[in-house]
Amino acid sequence: MGEEVKHRPIGVYDSGVGGLTVVRWLHRVLPQEQIVYFGDTARVPYGGRSRHELVEFSRQIVGFFQEQGVKFVIAACNTSSALALPVVAQEVDVPLMGVIGAGAREAVSVTKTKKIGVIGTQATVTSGAYARAVKELEPVTNVYEQACPELVPLIEGGHRDGEIVEKPLKRYLEPLLERNIDTLILGCTHYPYLLVPIKRLVGTGVEIVDPAEAAAREARDTLEVLGLLSEEKVGEDLFFVSGEPGTFRAAAVQLGYTQRVEHVEIERYTI
Amino acid sequence: MGEEVKHRPIGVYDSGVGGLTVVRWLHRVLPQEQIVYFGDTARVPYGGRSRHELVEFSRQIVGFFQEQGVKFVIAACNTSSALALPVVAQEVDVPLMGVIGAGAREAVSVTKTKKIGVIGTQATVTSGAYARAVKELEPVTNVYEQACPELVPLIEGGHRDGEIVEKPLKRYLEPLLERNIDTLILGCTHYPYLLVPIKRLVGTGVEIVDPAEAAAREARDTLEVLGLLSEEKVGEDLFFVSGEPGTFRAAAVQLGYTQRVEHVEIERYTI
Repeated sequence: MGEEVKHRPIGVYDSGVGGLTVVRWLHRVLPQEQIVYFGDTARVPYGGRSRHELVEFSRQIVGFFQEQGVKFVIAACNTSSALALPVVAQEVDVPLMGVIGAGAREAVSVTKTKKIGVIGTQATVTSGAYARAVKELEPVTNVYEQACPELVPLIEGGHRDGEIVEKPLKRYLEPLLERNIDTLILGCTHYPYLLVPIKRLVGTGVEIVDPAEAAAREARDTLEVLGLLSEEKVGEDLFFVSGEPGTFRAAAVQLGYTQRVEHVEIERYTI
Repeated sequence: MGEEVKHRPIGVYDSGVGGLTVVRWLHRVLPQEQIVYFGDTARVPYGGRSRHELVEFSRQIVGFFQEQGVKFVIAACNTSSALALPVVAQEVDVPLMGVIGAGAREAVSVTKTKKIGVIGTQATVTSGAYARAVKELEPVTNVYEQACPELVPLIEGGHRDGEIVEKPLKRYLEPLLERNIDTLILGCTHYPYLLVPIKRLVGTGVEIVDPAEAAAREARDTLEVLGLLSEEKVGEDLFFVSGEPGTFRAAAVQLGYTQRVEHVEIERYTI
């Protein structure tokens, strides 16, 4: 290998624009790292997909990242972290991490009453990945999981607040609040876009955990242990999508990303 | 890849028997992991070697581990961690970690007076790796490093206490104690074998940090983040040496390891 591994980029993927919330945290804790982002906008949402499909998608994306020469992959997508990562991490040499372990560890350290709520996609909730990860750390904790199938399409459609968002959100959060949770995991990278209405609905008694933040810190620690922290940013961040770049670009600009967004034929790749 | 990555072994290497102290800690925190150990007994001690030689040795050992199909490599040797690892970690895809970062992090969390002593081989001390790692974490800490070139040959020769050990040890520790250190890093995996005389000489006012323990914990955390923790031990630990197996076996048996020890022509391998 010519190039030093530590100066290669980190690959981050998500079903759509949600993973940009992870990129934002990565920029804060790892400003020297170059990011290659892939948003699977042609196949969003992931929430209703089967494990088989999600594993296949993840193999294609990791294959694309390998061709881009990444040193590390972060599955920013909770659904893919829950269903695809346990399989794909066993098939490749490039180190991979997801967001669920980090989110579970953060929630366990935050909760006082040991009643944790999780909102996520149907696939994430059905997988039980958060409940499993939390109970491995703290067996006596109660984890209440709520699938929120309407939220990702709303967020990908540009909605951030208002009645159109608040109505389903209220319906999703009520059963969790009735359980007296003191901690709520935003178990989908899209949900931080709805932080304002979520905070309003849950009130000040519930601590909100964004796994993206915890994952960014764990990524930094892991790269440090492996001697793979970059010392200087060697290139611009790169953004790729499987769908049409225009919509994604609009969402990216909202978050302050002005880089070019390129289309990639993701189905051509595999590990 | 047929086999699941998480059920592959962890490779651990050291210049000689010293790294077995790391294996002991790994057995405690990661009982389900299979270990492949390599002791470079034909070329011990590493302490007086050049960076060029140490990089070459490390490439051979990592190449051997790759042929053994390891999922993760721990350089238990401080000298190799300080001098070879920053180079070799940039050349291979298999994740590698050393013991210096873990030892530095542990020492920084333990010290109250911010005066840390380090004992190590000549090469480790000359590299300044511990001072650098500590100061990255806590810039205002004082780090006093002392090379102890006579200790590894004594330990490899079977000595654990008595005048033959105490005399040089006293000479090495006195300058550190005069600086009023409150924390002493055992910056060579051999030194825990001398824990009894070291404790006697430094007294109760100095906390002793064995980087092997911290490294084993960081290895567990890193494998957990990467989804590579083994769920069950799938094979016996394997022990290899570059020299004659007999002497190593005697030292291994002292620590309770009764497995076979095999010779390997390490110079035939490379990454």
